[in-house]
Amino acid sequence: MEVKVVRDILEVNEVIAQENQRVFSERGIYVLNLMGSPGTGKTTLLERTLERLRERWKVGVIEGDIATSQDAERIARHGVPTVQINTGGACHLDGNMIRGALGELDLEGLDLLVVENVGNLVCPAEFRIGEDDKVMILSVTEGEDKPLKYPLMFQVSSALLLNKMDLLPYVDFDLERFRQYALKVNPRLEIMEISCKTGEGLDRWVQWLEGRISKKRG
Amino acid sequence: MEVKVVRDILEVNEVIAQENQRVFSERGIYVLNLMGSPGTGKTTLLERTLERLRERWKVGVIEGDIATSQDAERIARHGVPTVQINTGGACHLDGNMIRGALGELDLEGLDLLVVENVGNLVCPAEFRIGEDDKVMILSVTEGEDKPLKYPLMFQVSSALLLNKMDLLPYVDFDLERFRQYALKVNPRLEIMEISCKTGEGLDRWVQWLEGRISKKRG
Repeated sequence: MEVKVVRDILEVNEVIAQENQRVFSERGIYVLNLMGSPGTGKTTLLERTLERLRERWKVGVIEGDIATSQDAERIARHGVPTVQINTGGACHLDGNMIRGALGELDLEGLDLLVVENVGNLVCPAEFRIGEDDKVMILSVTEGEDKPLKYPLMFQVSSALLLNKMDLLPYVDFDLERFRQYALKVNPRLEIMEISCKTGEGLDRWVQWLEGRISKKRG
Repeated sequence: MEVKVVRDILEVNEVIAQENQRVFSERGIYVLNLMGSPGTGKTTLLERTLERLRERWKVGVIEGDIATSQDAERIARHGVPTVQINTGGACHLDGNMIRGALGELDLEGLDLLVVENVGNLVCPAEFRIGEDDKVMILSVTEGEDKPLKYPLMFQVSSALLLNKMDLLPYVDFDLERFRQYALKVNPRLEIMEISCKTGEGLDRWVQWLEGRISKKRG
């Protein structure tokens, strides 16, 4: 009974996500669904990315949080149109929340829409929102065993940003073992080592992202 | 409609959680529900705690994970009866999962049962399992704004262990502001600064825990 309800919710979500995707694709907007645990560095990555992209591309942002509009305020300071979704307790964004937010965002001329999901390594992976790619962030402080213990997030992501590389000397994190685990769960996962603090790896990340945007613009 | 279903699930869970609690209380077992994000240090804290407690108290452990039994194996090495629950995708433990696990755990003579929840700062806070206290771990690497952004977990917890204090010199984490935020959300929250790596603060934590166990044993 409970399983049936969950399946229904996922099926309804899938229909709405596909509608969102059609809206985005008609306008040639590349949509990124950015996921990861609380505090892994999603908003900071987004800030560093906007600094590097906003001269060349028109970017919009949807910020998903359970409460507060702190992240949206941080992003809006970069001069980028930003909409805050407060889920009011819900642990992930879904297609319907994104559809609701589109009424408040001017899609005209946008090249890239970044959706920062609720901080959670589990639930956001289950709900498509109409994105082209899911990208996840994990930090070296979180441990190398995470791909095995939270496999779905790693399976559905196109790319993984391994963040806080500047803290690597101070934590027990086996990089080689991490790569093995992650690629075992998803052999096609693109893994990029970054530090939003030092800037390490951000050029490669931005290059990857611009390749995706260019392809979508056609 | 969807909200109604969610409410039903929570109500059913509450009934089962109360049944579990009766089973534990009849035997004088103090039950701890340990929560926090993936990689924040729940299993390591549990190992350090068992080393300090197991001479004086009989302890049992239930390990909740989406997949793998790695954590249960780590704990079982400490010579403590351990049961692994694999949720198979679900983002939290609930009362019914704990009830199922009790059949595999010998409760006879137990003083303390620790339930390590699925790594998630959101969903586990909503589901009681029959515990005496919820205790949460947050690490200084996760940022001081978390109480405002994920308030429920902080509201339902009796104590908060602020972990990875050894990394404080290398991250931007404002301790004073964190305490303000956390106590604003939950004025009765007991905050203890710890490092499972250096041992800082663990004596105070174990003292707190033993006080609770003693009180329950009566």
